This record gives sequence, C-alpha cells and structure tokens, in this order.
Amino acid sequence: VNEPRRSFWGWGLEGVGATESERALIAAAIRTRMGVEPGAPERPPRIDDLRLRRPRITPPGALAAICSTDPYDRALHAYGRSYRDVVRGFRGLFPNPPDVVAYPRDEADIVRLLDHCSSAGIAAIPFGGGTSVVGGVEPAVGEAFAGTLTIDLSRLAGVLKVDERSRAVRVQAGALGPSVERVLAPLGLSMRHYPQSFEFSTVGGWIATRASGHHATLRTHVDDLVESLRIITPAGTLQTRRLPASGAGPAPDRLFIGSEGALGIVTEAWLRVQPRPRWRSSAAVRFGAFADGTGAARALAQSGMYPANCRLLDPTEALLAGAGDGSGAVLLVAFESADHPQEAALTRAVECARDLGGEPAEIRHRGPDDAAGPGGSAGAWRGAFLRAPYLRDVMVAMGMITETFETAVTWDRSDALDDAVLAAAEAGLRDAGAWPAIVTRRFTHVYADGPAPYYTVIAPGRRGSEIGQWDLAKTAVSDAIVASGGTITHHHAVGRDHRPWYDRERPDLFARGLGAAKAVLDPSWIMNPGVLVDPP
Amino acid sequence: VNEPRRSFWGWGLEGVGATESERALIAAAIRTRMGVEPGAPERPPRIDDLRLRRPRITPPGALAAICSTDPYDRALHAYGRSYRDVVRGFRGLFPNPPDVVAYPRDEADIVRLLDHCSSAGIAAIPFGGGTSVVGGVEPAVGEAFAGTLTIDLSRLAGVLKVDERSRAVRVQAGALGPSVERVLAPLGLSMRHYPQSFEFSTVGGWIATRASGHHATLRTHVDDLVESLRIITPAGTLQTRRLPASGAGPAPDRLFIGSEGALGIVTEAWLRVQPRPRWRSSAAVRFGAFADGTGAARALAQSGMYPANCRLLDPTEALLAGAGDGSGAVLLVAFESADHPQEAALTRAVECARDLGGEPAEIRHRGPDDAAGPGGSAGAWRGAFLRAPYLRDVMVAMGMITETFETAVTWDRSDALDDAVLAAAEAGLRDAGAWPAIVTRRFTHVYADGPAPYYTVIAPGRRGSEIGQWDLAKTAVSDAIVASGGTITHHHAVGRDHRPWYDRERPDLFARGLGAAKAVLDPSWIMNPGVLVDPP
Repeated sequence: VNEPRRSFWGWGLEGVGATESERALIAAAIRTRMGVEPGAPERPPRIDDLRLRRPRITPPGALAAICSTDPYDRALHAYGRSYRDVVRGFRGLFPNPPDVVAYPRDEADIVRLLDHCSSAGIAAIPFGGGTSVVGGVEPAVGEAFAGTLTIDLSRLAGVLKVDERSRAVRVQAGALGPSVERVLAPLGLSMRHYPQSFEFSTVGGWIATRASGHHATLRTHVDDLVESLRIITPAGTLQTRRLPASGAGPAPDRLFIGSEGALGIVTEAWLRVQPRPRWRSSAAVRFGAFADGTGAARALAQSGMYPANCRLLDPTEALLAGAGDGSGAVLLVAFESADHPQEAALTRAVECARDLGGEPAEIRHRGPDDAAGPGGSAGAWRGAFLRAPYLRDVMVAMGMITETFETAVTWDRSDALDDAVLAAAEAGLRDAGAWPAIVTRRFTHVYADGPAPYYTVIAPGRRGSEIGQWDLAKTAVSDAIVASGGTITHHHAVGRDHRPWYDRERPDLFARGLGAAKAVLDPSWIMNPGVLVDPP
Repeated sequence: VNEPRRSFWGWGLEGVGATESERALIAAAIRTRMGVEPGAPERPPRIDDLRLRRPRITPPGALAAICSTDPYDRALHAYGRSYRDVVRGFRGLFPNPPDVVAYPRDEADIVRLLDHCSSAGIAAIPFGGGTSVVGGVEPAVGEAFAGTLTIDLSRLAGVLKVDERSRAVRVQAGALGPSVERVLAPLGLSMRHYPQSFEFSTVGGWIATRASGHHATLRTHVDDLVESLRIITPAGTLQTRRLPASGAGPAPDRLFIGSEGALGIVTEAWLRVQPRPRWRSSAAVRFGAFADGTGAARALAQSGMYPANCRLLDPTEALLAGAGDGSGAVLLVAFESADHPQEAALTRAVECARDLGGEPAEIRHRGPDDAAGPGGSAGAWRGAFLRAPYLRDVMVAMGMITETFETAVTWDRSDALDDAVLAAAEAGLRDAGAWPAIVTRRFTHVYADGPAPYYTVIAPGRRGSEIGQWDLAKTAVSDAIVASGGTITHHHAVGRDHRPWYDRERPDLFARGLGAAKAVLDPSWIMNPGVLVDPP
C-alpha cells in the first residue's frame, strides 16, 4: 500500500501540503497586509524523532489483532486539527497520545472493545476523520483511567445501500465524504453536505458533532439529513427507525446527534440525499462595510427563497479569498436546483440586495449543458475555502497564529455581538502581545432568525508561546460570544476546548438529565471522558 | 362572564356544534354512502347529571385559591377529544376525573403545585387546550398515587414580546393559536402553524406533543419553529438559549419537544414567525386511483420546490370533503410567498403532475389585491377540515364510529404499508361487527423520503359497544403500521393510547436513557404518569 498516508501533525495527506508558490504568496501577504516579517519556516517533525510515553495498557490477546501501539498510529490519533493541535504536533509535543489505537473490523469488534474498556477502566475515544478543531478526540482524560484507547472507525466505511425511491443512503460511520459521493454520483444523487473538512471527515464524525455543510440556508446541519442511526453504547446496541418524520415522543436521534462520542459510537446512519443540482445562478453583490451588507443577508434569509449560498464576506475576508479588492464587503448569493432554472430566483434576490444598497456584479446562470464549477468571486472563494487548512499549516511553520471562531445569534443581537467579539479579539490579542493582527469575518449561514458569524484571526506569534497567546484571545472572545447571547459553537462542536462556555450556555438541568442518560448508556463513564458532561 | 364555555364532553364551545342542516346532510350521507340508517341522535349529557367520584385530595390552603373541584372543571379535564373520549363523555362516563383542577396564575404557582404533588404523591397532569386525541391528558394513572391534579395553563396565555427583527415571538404556553395570531397579524406576521385543533389548542400543547401544522412540506412540525423553551420541572426551572441554530451538544430543546408533560411543564417559548403570505397559486390535479397520484406527490416532495400544500386525497376522501366527485383522487397543490408571485412554481408543479398522469384543474393565482381565502376544491377541503371535529360529535350522537389514524413511512415502504393498513382496518372492523365501513385516506404531509398517510374511518357502531369495537380495529391497524415500518404517530402524539406501539417503535436503550433523565427532572415520578416511560 503506497498511497500517501495522513500527516500525523498537519492537515490532509503527507506530501500534499501547500506548494512553493502558495508559500511565497503567504509570506508576501503577511509582509504587505500586516507589516510583519514572517519567521523562517520551521521544519515539520519526523515520526522517528518522537518520544512517546510508553503505552500504559496492553490489549488482551483477542483484541491484539485490531490494535496498534505503533508511534505513527498513536501520534496521528493524539490530536484533532485545530490551530492548537497543529502547533503542538508541529513541535513534536505529544504528552497524551492514546496508549492504544484500535481499528475494529465490524460491530462485534466495537462491542468487545467497549466491554474491555468498561471492565478495565480504560477511556475509549471514538475517532472518525480526526478533523476536530475543538479537542474532541484528544485523549487528555486526566488520571482516573488505566489508559486511553482510541477507536478508529476507518475500517467501517462502507456505503451499504442506496434507496433511490426514498432518496436515502445507508452508510457506515467511518465513510469519508468523497467515498459516499462516489457511490451517489452515478445515480445523480448527492448528500450535498460539504463541511470544510469534507475530504477527511466521516459521516459518523459529522453526526457526533452536529456538523454543518457549505449550504447557507435550509438544511444546514447534518441533523436534518439523519433519517436513522445505529449506535453501540457500552450498555448495548441501539437502532432507530427509518422515518421521514415522527411525532412519537422526544426524537431519539436528537439525543445522539451532537453527543460527541460521550454516549456511544455511531456505527451506521441512513442519510437523506438529494438530486445533484443541474441549474445554478449566482451573483456577487458589493457593499461598503460589512454592516452595510447585513440587511441584505437578513432580507434574503427571511425571503422564503432559501439560497444555496448567502455568504457575506467583510472587505478583508473578500480580499484574502480573492473574492474582492478589499474596498468593500461582498455578498455571494446563489440558487441551485435539480428541477428547473434559477434565473428568476436570482433576479429577485439581486433586486432585493440592490434595494438594500448593494451593487450586483458577476451574475451567472448555468444549466445542465454548461461546464461545471462556479467562476469569479464565488469560485475564488470556494477554492480558498478548500485550501485554507493546508495554508494554515504553512503559517504555523512561519510562526503565525491563525485560527477561527464561530457562533450563531438572533438578528436583534447580532450587531452588538459583532462589536463585542471584535473588541474582545483585539483586546485579547493585544494582551497576548499578538498585535497587529488581522481579524476578518463572514456569515457562513443565515437563518430567518439570525446569522452564523465566523471570524478568522491571523496574528504574529512568539515562537514557543503561541498557544498561550491564542488561548488568551480565545478566552476573551468566547466570553464575549456567550455574554452577547451567541452559542459557543454553530458547527465546530464543543469538545474539550469549548467546555467551559458550553457549561454556561446549556441549562444545568439539561446537563443533569444528559448525565443521567449517559450513566445508563455508559455506566463506567469510559466514553470520551471530559466531553459534554462529567460524572456526578 | 357570559362568553360560551368549552363543552365538557365534545368539541369546541358549548352551543357552537353542528347546524341542523349539517346534521341532516350527515344523516343523508350515512344513508347513501354506507347504506346504513343512522341512529336517532342521543341527547348529550348535562353537567348536573354527572356523578363524579369525590375528590380524594384537598389542596393545601395556600393553593386553594387557584384550585377547583367543581364538577364542570373536573369533567372538562377528564378527557382529551379523541373518538373514545367523546363517546365516553357523551355517555356521561367519567370514572377518572382529576380530583382537583388547578389554574396557576404564574410560574410561582406552578412551582408550588409541583412541590405539593411531589411531596404528597399526587399525579400532576399538564393541560393545555385539552384537544389530545391519544389520551394524553386523561388522569388514568393507576392506584399508585394519592390522587390526580390537573394543571390547566389557561391563565398563562400572554403574548409577551414580538421581535420583528429576528422574526420571533415570545409566548406563554397556555396561549391558543388565534390569540397569538391576533397579535402577529397587525405586524404582517404569522406562525403559519395550523393544526386542525388550532382554535382550541395551545402553544405549550403543540410543543409537548410535537404537533404539526397544515403546511405539507418544509417546517411541518412545531419542532422547527421552537427557538427556545422555558420549562418548570419538579427539580427546578430550565431556560434554553434563544438561538437560530447551534452545534453545541445534543439540542436541549429536542429533549422537551414531544415530552408530553412527562418531564415538566412548558411555560414559555420563543417561536419563529414568518411574514404573512401575499401571493398564492394553487391547483387541483385529478388522478384515477389514489395509487396513481402517489408518484406525483413524491415527485413534488422531491422537487426542492416546497409547496405549502401537497395533499393527495383518495376518491372518497375528496368526495366527502367536497373536493371531488368521487371518481378520482385529487392532489391539492399550492405555493405561497410573502415576497413574490408563485405562478412559475405552480406551473412547474402542474407540469410535473401532468407528466405523471394527472389532469390539472382549478388553477388559481392570487396576489395581495385579491380577496382572501382559497376557493374551489382547496377551499371546500379546508372548510371541511376545520368543521370535521364538530361533525364528528354529531356522528357519535348517531351511533357511528368515526376516528382517524396516521403515520409516516419512507417511500420504499409506503405502498405496502397502505395495503397492510387498509387490510387490517377492514379485518379489524369486520371482527368488531362494524362493517360495512368507509375507510378513506390522504397524505397530510410529504417529505423527500416519505409521505405521512392519514386515514379516516366511518363505521356503524353498536350503541354501548362502540369503544370496544373501535379498539379492536385500532389495535389491528396500529400493529400493521408498526410492522410495516411506519411510526405510530406522525403528529397525534403518543399519550396513553399509543403507548404499546410506541414501546415497540422506540429503541429500548433510548427509553432507559429517557427514563434516567426523567428520574432527575421528576424524582417522584409524578409528571403525567403512564405517558412515554415508566419507573424502573
């Protein structure tokens, strides 16, 4: 098997990072945009140089065949892919690798693994694609466990059945986005769920973390795509019924969607799929400042038209993504349909945006006979979006702090939240000595009752202190988000990093109820400890 | 206060039942359609003739001011409004009236009531509009309690705030549908949530039972309208955060939506609202048999066009509702928008239905300047829909069995489910000696992955034995629904009547988790006993 393997410290595959010209462009951008001289790139770590703690546990013989203590496997599963993770990985800092990584071949293996962990007091960490940006897969579980065992779902990655009549697909949890789409595409179908991590994240990971896709309205989160689930908990296996809708008691699926591996391991799901769009109409509408475009974003969100894209970029965000010249905000709007042309919808949306002060440009209509892929600002933005995680690794090597944070909030509070978050980010970065910085924002999704604002920070770090610097800013921003009425996460999940703010956001009695449910499903409290809820 | 009060045994208000001409039409229809002579109408019961069991409990002095043991209050709260309920009420059979009915004035009263019930071992039954058709508010709780106390939310019925910017309204749980709309209408807004019980059901009741509205696609259930909730449980009060969306752990609201009063009492909600539609385009498309129209219903459900109405009526259903002549099935399709005309959408939908064998008729387009209200088949159907509960009372008086059952199922199983349900209904009604009967069906809602079929039964009953007769048929049908892969309820809820099939449908481990959550929120297990989950 000579396929490239996943980088154990950075984004994506080994050897598929940023190109030389991308590196040069980034360095130039840091110089010109920030007036900062990027540091000489550090060398990434080599697996042979790591000195990992010796495994504290030994899987019993029956499980040995599916378990690994190889340093690459342990390092690869030690972190997700947040900025904090990449910095630590890049520096070769792996204080909490899993003691053992298991690759179950089937559900029976998972049952055996959970039984063993429950009886031996070993923390079990479910692992899909490992793209968590919130510490969701990091085996930092304290001292209460005999050891940590990460359960990697990559061998349960089949696309088991397509029900074309009901437009649904039965998938194993370890399947990566592209592998499901490869089965659906010849049938003219698609999940149409594209998180930024699409290439390397799994169906099970999406469900466990309530991932959202690229589409800006309507079915934004995977929650709405889930028709049924299959879950293995330490207390047994559970299968919900395939149903288009039901009113029979609290929805069972919703207890497990977003449960972040704390209740059990999602092994399978039926997901709703859609026909692939054949018509697409799009425009880029220019506004002065970001605040000038929010009214149009709100109007479109409340129009009942459900654009596939309705993404407001502030001037710097537009510039950095190649979707604008930096002189104004840009609202990217698009409609898609498998059934009929979208000119009329786009025309109406553009009219609406113009009424609210926008200058439309780049109006494009594509049909089934046109070449695929959006061009112009939207195409530039999409390209930048998919490359971003690779480029971040380059910036880390140059000593830059680069991270994102995101939320959702009702429209009545969104302006105040934006002010508070920008102020907190600047104050936090200044306090941390990471200033001047660039802080850009966009709306990733819009709802009739509020937007999902998303912020990107690029700041000069001090080598060796970057994580502490970032943590200062992140804390200030997270405090501001929760104090301003936002959620600590619209689609990045809670993990270990967001836990303090999650605890403030969710009602205490709900947490107690969730903890009681966990005690039934995971009586030894071995499932992904530290995530969502703690033992009483 | 001389306003008409609610009938203690039948639908709606006292003195606002069916008209004489409606009664005559019903009698004639029973004769001609079924070849059955309707019984002479029985007289409805009078409150003074009831002999209710003496109250077994006495509320403490501090609560006496908000408590009633008046026979009318107790009888009114003894049942919901299912067929079984109306028959029993009509016959004056009230073996399980609540011992006490409380009318809390504020949340503090609710806290006091729940504290008292918890400490005194009294079952507490939350009561909104009392329109449950599944035994959800019936104080039939067995012998384990000192008594039963129904908590009527009608005094907590305020519309507290409208956030026009975020398109949301803060409502107390006891508010009836029309009272919320009266506040929203002058602002050009609407919940656009119209269950058949709209006039007499409450926001809190909708949330507790996962009610669905009249609209056939997209946001069918109240679940999607809920932005946040406030709930009083015996263990304390809980408030979720107003958010347009979140990815922070399992959604707290979703644990309580559909909890049927078993976890606590919803006291307030923020609900998403919409602009009132200004344009409406509609058509009635004729098909041969019901099965000939299901393909078009499926195509429209999967078109990505989201019609407001997409209701397939079988020939007899269309005939009885005045929406057809009985010679064919009718698909009522309509699009609505507050933003722009809907001609294009309807034209595309009609084209689609024609391609699949339909004959379009009654194509209408209405705009802001046209008179309100749909005419033609759609108007006839809507009128019949809203009158149906009143007419049912008349049929009960004539000794007819008349009830509905409903489900949702994926498209791959929907034809087989329909066959099985019709066969089970006929077999059950024959076994019960209630044949010849009319069994009609429609799709009330359609989803990309499946329809929500809804069946209406009209059968000749034997006076005094009707409930046993119906229960035989209902059991046969419910068995068939669950065996065919459907849900025991798409929007009528579980209550006490659907409990055996709910227990088969939902995963056991989910029920155990839910029970554990209940034990935390309701440690004395006093909340609506018998609903959803039992003590371990």
